[in-house]
Amino acid sequence: MTPEEFRTHGHALIDWIADYRSTLHERPVMSPLRPGVVAAQLSAAAPEAGEDPAAVLADLDRVVLPGLSLWQHPEFFHFFPANAELSSVLGDIASTGLGVLGLSWESSPALSEVEIRTMDWMRELLGLSEGWRGVVQDSASGCALTAMLEARERASGFAMHAGGTDQGRDRMVVYCTAQAHSSVPKAMLLAGFGRQNVREVPVDADYAMDAQALRAIVAEDRAAGLRPAAVVATCGTTATTALDPLAEIGRIAQDEDLWFHVDAAMAGSAMLLPECRWMWEGVELADSLVVNAHKWLGVAFDCSLFFVKDPVFLEKVMATHPSYLQSSHDEDVVNLRDWGVPLGRRFRALKLWFMLRMEGAEALRARLRRDLDNAAWLAAQVDAAEGWERVAPTPLQTVCVRHVPAGLDPADPADAEAIDAHTRASAQAVNASGKAAVSLATLEGRWMVRLSVGALGTEREHVERLWKVLGEAVAR
Amino acid sequence: MTPEEFRTHGHALIDWIADYRSTLHERPVMSPLRPGVVAAQLSAAAPEAGEDPAAVLADLDRVVLPGLSLWQHPEFFHFFPANAELSSVLGDIASTGLGVLGLSWESSPALSEVEIRTMDWMRELLGLSEGWRGVVQDSASGCALTAMLEARERASGFAMHAGGTDQGRDRMVVYCTAQAHSSVPKAMLLAGFGRQNVREVPVDADYAMDAQALRAIVAEDRAAGLRPAAVVATCGTTATTALDPLAEIGRIAQDEDLWFHVDAAMAGSAMLLPECRWMWEGVELADSLVVNAHKWLGVAFDCSLFFVKDPVFLEKVMATHPSYLQSSHDEDVVNLRDWGVPLGRRFRALKLWFMLRMEGAEALRARLRRDLDNAAWLAAQVDAAEGWERVAPTPLQTVCVRHVPAGLDPADPADAEAIDAHTRASAQAVNASGKAAVSLATLEGRWMVRLSVGALGTEREHVERLWKVLGEAVAR
Ligand SMILES: Cc1ncc(COP(=O)(O)O)c(C=O)c1O
Ligand SMILES: Cc1ncc(COP(=O)(O)O)c(C=O)c1O
Repeated sequence: MTPEEFRTHGHALIDWIADYRSTLHERPVMSPLRPGVVAAQLSAAAPEAGEDPAAVLADLDRVVLPGLSLWQHPEFFHFFPANAELSSVLGDIASTGLGVLGLSWESSPALSEVEIRTMDWMRELLGLSEGWRGVVQDSASGCALTAMLEARERASGFAMHAGGTDQGRDRMVVYCTAQAHSSVPKAMLLAGFGRQNVREVPVDADYAMDAQALRAIVAEDRAAGLRPAAVVATCGTTATTALDPLAEIGRIAQDEDLWFHVDAAMAGSAMLLPECRWMWEGVELADSLVVNAHKWLGVAFDCSLFFVKDPVFLEKVMATHPSYLQSSHDEDVVNLRDWGVPLGRRFRALKLWFMLRMEGAEALRARLRRDLDNAAWLAAQVDAAEGWERVAPTPLQTVCVRHVPAGLDPADPADAEAIDAHTRASAQAVNASGKAAVSLATLEGRWMVRLSVGALGTEREHVERLWKVLGEAVAR
Repeated sequence: MTPEEFRTHGHALIDWIADYRSTLHERPVMSPLRPGVVAAQLSAAAPEAGEDPAAVLADLDRVVLPGLSLWQHPEFFHFFPANAELSSVLGDIASTGLGVLGLSWESSPALSEVEIRTMDWMRELLGLSEGWRGVVQDSASGCALTAMLEARERASGFAMHAGGTDQGRDRMVVYCTAQAHSSVPKAMLLAGFGRQNVREVPVDADYAMDAQALRAIVAEDRAAGLRPAAVVATCGTTATTALDPLAEIGRIAQDEDLWFHVDAAMAGSAMLLPECRWMWEGVELADSLVVNAHKWLGVAFDCSLFFVKDPVFLEKVMATHPSYLQSSHDEDVVNLRDWGVPLGRRFRALKLWFMLRMEGAEALRARLRRDLDNAAWLAAQVDAAEGWERVAPTPLQTVCVRHVPAGLDPADPADAEAIDAHTRASAQAVNASGKAAVSLATLEGRWMVRLSVGALGTEREHVERLWKVLGEAVAR
């Protein structure tokens, strides 16, 4: 495609995206399609001849759009928000158009220098000390894996540079709660710790890690001759945004020489707000930390902010120095390939840089506060309504609810089954209506509905409408 | 940013990208900036108030552009090509604008269905059997890690679901050559095999794996009570595009029950050409395979095509099933989060789908053939020129050369040092001139210059100019 053809079709595409974003609210939130409907419209054979780009762009409307669930829809209360704010979209467009790679500083100096500076801005905005160094990664899952690999190597005295982890040394043990995101135990297993060595620390009544229980289990493991290696605490769990007590956990990590990784994938965004900083008090005790800028904060996916205290240690785990990647500046620069798994790195900081500059921190804070207010309003409605219960605290923007039909008793096992069926059916009815999207999740073995407020376009009126739609769904 | 503001600035950005791409050739190929020059132009404090988007876009010209090395420049012969063909750029713009995530099929059905179909097109275009299933990942490095994790779990009988890899079972051993990309031993170490268990299999005169040596080393390891677990073969090594003999290696892998991963990150693109398919004869014996569509083929970074024979096994290593990700369709659909590390997944297949449809396979083949012709022409010039030598075969588009000044003898150690200095100085002079970009790399401990042909805009005239620039550089 020539630059002039790109210009023509690029303009059309920009208009298409602007139209899509401004008419989102007219479409069903969750795609109503059944499996296979999109695939059936795609040619079975690979294209031999080029097609008119306009025809391909037209397929965005015809084939793709009906098959999308609309994460920026103002009635999207599913999962966690993925806001893809339009200023960050501009940054990502620039990144793709530039097509440069950050294998090494030399391979595009501006890529590394903008990334390092922008991560430093984020450190400052999040209220983190100057002791942290940051890099943009693809996902909180990838960051958890990186952290667990660092933990493994620290606890094993760099087994990777010797006999590896299969050398019958002390069994290493790692800790998190059952409320940790699924990517956390996954990272522990992928790092090779083994399911038998992944300990589930009990939670308190608020679904946060019980730090005293952690201390006791670590002591037991140590007494049994095992080697406690790492603890992962979550600041804002996926099910209920529970807040593990970082300060207490951090002290235990220090006392016991554990790698301390903080998964603030969700709640991290709220740390732009001074009034929320108590939520991660103790974060300075951590060795590694992830905040997903691609969630509530608004950067287009993928943009996970990975902070570490000791980048030299990270490089010891990740660095490679093949001759074909050496440059004459290697002594004076940071080569960000050595701060993660992938060699090739796109200019991901550009979308973060664009959003921070075009929006400014104050506007981001105002939006986050709007969402916290809306969630608090919704929580108050639930608390005041007959038959409804809020099944977990609401420190942030996710309200976890259940409706108990009159005459049923949650404490009676048979009734609990009926309530579960009612919960699932009503949430599915909401999603099938296309009017709003909500999540189902379990808590202590029982289903609940997660209402995650915070899509870009979600104003109070949308939350009011959600509350109405929920009321209708449980009354069916 | 409102959709209307996005429309205004988006149009400006499209024009900027079109202009950038059409004037690339007038700029220095490698950024001439010294470390810190870009950083010095970035504000130290995070932005509190939003700025005019036009001012931020203007900084692309003022701050960013001078700090970029231009991967699509027609005189870019550095590293390997990263083409970011403009049709794929359109696809990526659409992906970012749509802002949907593929955590699960349900989270955006079209994302999964387009990805699966497009990967099937690629399977067909690459001449692979129907036994392969594909998924788009971020990088060949990530795919190598995934493959090594699969290998570890197969060889250890799923240690991750039991005691992990530190349980003193048989020591597992893995194999590649010193010519494997640095991401391959990195993946082996990250998967926990340990440096002592990573065997470097000798190469033949063409820098390809010596399969007989592999068989012998595996036999020795087995005799010593070790557990051979995996072999990684490269189809197109980074230094010289050497071709490991996949058929022979594959037979050994079968006989010895090794996981067989093929790194065709670079040469994979050439498999669109039937006349190149001999290069990966035996690939059907592999368990996993990566082809980087974001290199020579032309898709905007990142787009690594990861193929496996047994996706059920991959899911056993990678799958998670938390309640908040369950959907009513999970029995009938593929959830691609279970085919890799990250949970969140952007709509990366869109850029591949756009490029394949807008360009068509025939046009891609014609471009690849143009580049092979240009590389063959360059190789012929080197062969015919006094003082120049081609230090490795040129099966593809990368020509590896060295210039030996008159009177120096490469076999004499003192002269060899002088030749190394001359090689490095002349390549650095080329890069500093801004007229062309080339790589330095070592081969058997001696420096050489890698000339990697295949940027989108590189025509014969540019290769002719490169040859002239090289002649001037060595004559300084
Ligand atoms: C607390 C938490 N951690 C980690 C993740 C995984 O994020 P990613 O998709 O970036 O891997 C999520 C995703 O929702 C999350 O809520
Ligand atoms: C043969 C080979 N394998 C793997 C890689 C790593 O690719 P990625 O940046 O996608 O991790 C490269 C990069 O040049 C390569 O040449």
